[in-house]
Amino acid sequence: MTAFNPTQRSKVKRLHERGRYDEESVFAILDAGLVAHIGYVIDGQPYVTPTAYWRRGRRLYWHGSSASRMLRTQKDGIPVCVTVSLLDGLVVARSGFHHSINYRAVMAFGRARIVEDATEKEAELDYFVERIYPGHTTTLRPNNSQELKATTLIAMEIEEASAKTRTGAPKDDEEDYALDIWAGVVPIRQVVGAIERDPRLKPGIALPAHLTRFADGARFDALLSESTEKLAKAAE
Amino acid sequence: MTAFNPTQRSKVKRLHERGRYDEESVFAILDAGLVAHIGYVIDGQPYVTPTAYWRRGRRLYWHGSSASRMLRTQKDGIPVCVTVSLLDGLVVARSGFHHSINYRAVMAFGRARIVEDATEKEAELDYFVERIYPGHTTTLRPNNSQELKATTLIAMEIEEASAKTRTGAPKDDEEDYALDIWAGVVPIRQVVGAIERDPRLKPGIALPAHLTRFADGARFDALLSESTEKLAKAAE
Repeated sequence: MTAFNPTQRSKVKRLHERGRYDEESVFAILDAGLVAHIGYVIDGQPYVTPTAYWRRGRRLYWHGSSASRMLRTQKDGIPVCVTVSLLDGLVVARSGFHHSINYRAVMAFGRARIVEDATEKEAELDYFVERIYPGHTTTLRPNNSQELKATTLIAMEIEEASAKTRTGAPKDDEEDYALDIWAGVVPIRQVVGAIERDPRLKPGIALPAHLTRFADGARFDALLSESTEKLAKAAE
Repeated sequence: MTAFNPTQRSKVKRLHERGRYDEESVFAILDAGLVAHIGYVIDGQPYVTPTAYWRRGRRLYWHGSSASRMLRTQKDGIPVCVTVSLLDGLVVARSGFHHSINYRAVMAFGRARIVEDATEKEAELDYFVERIYPGHTTTLRPNNSQELKATTLIAMEIEEASAKTRTGAPKDDEEDYALDIWAGVVPIRQVVGAIERDPRLKPGIALPAHLTRFADGARFDALLSESTEKLAKAAE
């Protein structure tokens, strides 16, 4: 099993038994998410920007952020922490103290840098679209060179990463199981709602077949995992 | 309208027309979320920790994080950025460039400090439970002093904050509206799933009435907004 080597930076400290450092655990969570929270530092002040991201091997990509200006002056990149978290449920215990949350989360560390290469940039932006909407890119009006120039693409090699998850029922104090108190889990999930047509859509244009995967009620994390896995297999 | 006074730190830079600085906009987003991403700096390295939070006026609270050890040595607190983001939909445009995401997000800045006062600590932890599960606290086995001691509570006065949102249909280039390409929005929402009983639940214990709000399919952001608003009104 290929794994990241955790240092003090990425080692899970609180509830460390929930931590994992193997690629499989880390990638499974990254591939199920759409929005990452990117942490960076300017003049000692931390900033956390939410933004859509994607993964290619051990590299993460995302669009330009407010750190872009800073990145332009730092040729070696800047240290960032990319965190992805998925909320899976509320854990209802018999005491307030043992209430918890079921979740999957990854913290990935590395140095962010701007991607200048036009070929890499174009390929990655297409990949970004295909990951969410498989089969979609070729149906769109192609990007023009002005748009490519206007888009800042940022990449980060994952130097270290940790995954942390909690699943399942509450873990109450042994003597509390005898109490007449309800306990269990309220699952929380991110799902697709009923699709909305652009009010300015030309009459007679039906939803294309490749977008019907966004069915009302479909789990969004499952859709992302599925299309990401297919793209990875196609690239092998 | 009470507003935060944005400085360079909190001013929305990219797509600044989406930014808001009034308390109403900022609080509405904070009150609809459960998990924040807390950014802090240790030795120049940024860290982003996902954690449940709650708001009381202009103050944010959350549980102990891996920054706790650092906080113990810094009596004046440490600078943090607390970011909350809610994903509302995928915006499907006629070109890759105009694809976007509908979202609500807040970045809040301040200094985090550990709450040592036992009374404040106990009251806030109860509030945390009541915010998610109204009417729940009095049905639980009460917290004991050991548990209160074992819980690190962190507070941050919001010095500055910005809200950023995107809603509605794609905004395509004017000439692209004539193309025969489908466009619209795929709504994404966080909902409650079918509630799961603890396998170790004592026989004969039914789901209490106050937990029936977690109905299969209920929007989680709406549930949080509703209970937070009720608690704020009750405190007036």
